[in-house]
Amino acid sequence: MNAFSYRVQTLQPSAIREILKFTADPTVISFAAGNPAPEAFPAEEIKRITNEILSEQPIDALQYSITEGYTPLRNWIKADLEKKNMFDAGEEDVVITSGAQQAIEVVTKEICNEGDVIICEAPTFIGSLNAFRSYNSKLVGIDMDEDGINIEMLEKALEKYQRVAFIYLIPNFQNPTGKTMSLEKRKAVLELAKKHNIYILEDNPYGDLRYLGDDVPTIKSLDTTGHVLYAGTFSKTLAPGLRVGYLCAPKNVISKAVVCMQVSTVHTSILPQMIAYRFVTENDFEAHLERLRGIYRKKSELMLTNLKMQMPKSIKFTEPEGGLFIWGTLPDGDMNYFCKKAVQNKVAVVPGNAFLTDESKPCLSFRLNYSTPTDEQIEQGVKILAEVARTMYR
Amino acid sequence: MNAFSYRVQTLQPSAIREILKFTADPTVISFAAGNPAPEAFPAEEIKRITNEILSEQPIDALQYSITEGYTPLRNWIKADLEKKNMFDAGEEDVVITSGAQQAIEVVTKEICNEGDVIICEAPTFIGSLNAFRSYNSKLVGIDMDEDGINIEMLEKALEKYQRVAFIYLIPNFQNPTGKTMSLEKRKAVLELAKKHNIYILEDNPYGDLRYLGDDVPTIKSLDTTGHVLYAGTFSKTLAPGLRVGYLCAPKNVISKAVVCMQVSTVHTSILPQMIAYRFVTENDFEAHLERLRGIYRKKSELMLTNLKMQMPKSIKFTEPEGGLFIWGTLPDGDMNYFCKKAVQNKVAVVPGNAFLTDESKPCLSFRLNYSTPTDEQIEQGVKILAEVARTMYR
Repeated sequence: MNAFSYRVQTLQPSAIREILKFTADPTVISFAAGNPAPEAFPAEEIKRITNEILSEQPIDALQYSITEGYTPLRNWIKADLEKKNMFDAGEEDVVITSGAQQAIEVVTKEICNEGDVIICEAPTFIGSLNAFRSYNSKLVGIDMDEDGINIEMLEKALEKYQRVAFIYLIPNFQNPTGKTMSLEKRKAVLELAKKHNIYILEDNPYGDLRYLGDDVPTIKSLDTTGHVLYAGTFSKTLAPGLRVGYLCAPKNVISKAVVCMQVSTVHTSILPQMIAYRFVTENDFEAHLERLRGIYRKKSELMLTNLKMQMPKSIKFTEPEGGLFIWGTLPDGDMNYFCKKAVQNKVAVVPGNAFLTDESKPCLSFRLNYSTPTDEQIEQGVKILAEVARTMYR
Repeated sequence: MNAFSYRVQTLQPSAIREILKFTADPTVISFAAGNPAPEAFPAEEIKRITNEILSEQPIDALQYSITEGYTPLRNWIKADLEKKNMFDAGEEDVVITSGAQQAIEVVTKEICNEGDVIICEAPTFIGSLNAFRSYNSKLVGIDMDEDGINIEMLEKALEKYQRVAFIYLIPNFQNPTGKTMSLEKRKAVLELAKKHNIYILEDNPYGDLRYLGDDVPTIKSLDTTGHVLYAGTFSKTLAPGLRVGYLCAPKNVISKAVVCMQVSTVHTSILPQMIAYRFVTENDFEAHLERLRGIYRKKSELMLTNLKMQMPKSIKFTEPEGGLFIWGTLPDGDMNYFCKKAVQNKVAVVPGNAFLTDESKPCLSFRLNYSTPTDEQIEQGVKILAEVARTMYR
């Protein structure tokens, strides 16, 4: 019998999933997930809309559809991106995917040959790292400063490696660090991509969830030469269980992505696409987003305030302006021991090395999520974390 | 900028999609699709169920879920397969996919290295051929007899090729031929797979839609040694727009499939999975299937009766016992010319070479679908086809 293919032989389940197993224990407070807050879901409105769809257009919702996606939703996304200077109808197109994760996987499949280099921030989103690994790419992680990827190191990497498929970036409230890339760096990265004539894959799942400070233009909006492939999603702004995201890119990249999707999911489940479309058009979507920002602002503040009050001063935390995550960094010592002690005391956090291109590299950081736990869990969980930390640091 | 990866560079959109473009013209009668009959969808019941789900379990339906699939649905599928001797709980597992197509794509990704051989029936389902092509496999098509794949030719191919990833088969009412593989051949193929120690990927989308004759055991049900990977789906028995299918296979194959899905769709959209679960448990699913069989029996009979009455006797047609397709074969001449004349006269059929591993091979056959057109369209369409055919054959 064939063994597994080379491309997936060493592929492992996400380390986060392993940690989430502990959180099946209801007495464990989980800061390890990345789920939107359940109170953020407009459940009643989705029920109303869904009933409307299945009354008015049942066959459209149940029959095979086109791979490109539900046309009214695609058109809405295009118009929305156009308003934000992120879509050029003459040069670009949009395909609707099963979440941004499928957009990332399909881009990798269509652009990255086995052995090609993918450059990304270190640390970065583990789901993307594993998608890249699943096509036998060579991962090159570039350290981050407070305002995003280190440009000098990026420049050196681009000079060193010949076969670079693309640069993968999460410029807004990055997962896992919560950091936001400055406008200056966004421009610099785009210039480098143009100079070396390679794509940037910009992943922006949290962009609409800025609850502090001013928006920074997306790299896509700065691009006039077709170097940026953009992944968006309704997972954080509507509901992740629906699995509705999209890829916006030059027409030829979308055409090939459509062929790749035709042989996998055929098309994104159509009822969820129709739900997303009716939700954004029949409601004040901006008011809905403002409500979400309120929820996350409050939760983020609560966690940060408690961390600052209770944790030893030697442990540093990022202060995100949006998104779902805070990144903690120990002054020294054994981060994995700290995470293990935490979970033994019933608080789960994610060890930072899970987000590195090379998981065996030394790492002093860990990821905290504030969107999933309740306010009480945030207070209680930070209290426990602080007790654990005070036995190790001051 | 990176060109497209080698694996997808030559990948083309399905030829069927190109033909379906003609069918956007409402005056064209399409025998070219493969959609279930719209009257087969239990639309009212799905509306009721969906409303129930979004009233009782809205957060479950909207939040992230596990990659393996909605546990109650998985358990129902396992129990259903167990009843049919197709599931061994000690050795096997099930993952829920976005249609059987994703199961086929994921199996290819996890098992087939670039350059490995995939053996399949010639002709076979174009969506699977393109999934195999998208991982740079080498396709080897084996001719079919009336009762399925030619065993001698299969044996020779297995002796000739060293790196065979798996044998892909659609034993029931095959797409595109409508042929059913005999029990004898199913046993013979399984023996060959065991002898050469390679997997069989058994694709059975139409198995529940047998409207004539007796069920033939699936290859999976004959397998006691873990050589058969089985793809099933609710696309033809409930609704394809939901995109709910599954893969049943040895535990290690499922574990790796789950990791592959974690980096693409993350999980199959959860609301459609919950709809499928409630539908099969809150209704008499067997009675529903019997109703579908009635619809397809009637449509198949109507098309075959009209073909026999009106088409020149020199053109032969398969007489399927289930599924959605009839396969026509011209005695000689230019099949593509026939298909072109047909569409010029407003009837679309699919040229048979679209289903070959090598599309440039000579082919005299074409595929007809009877599930999508109305009864009137079947009668009118066959009449037109016969007029075209009588100018070429007798």
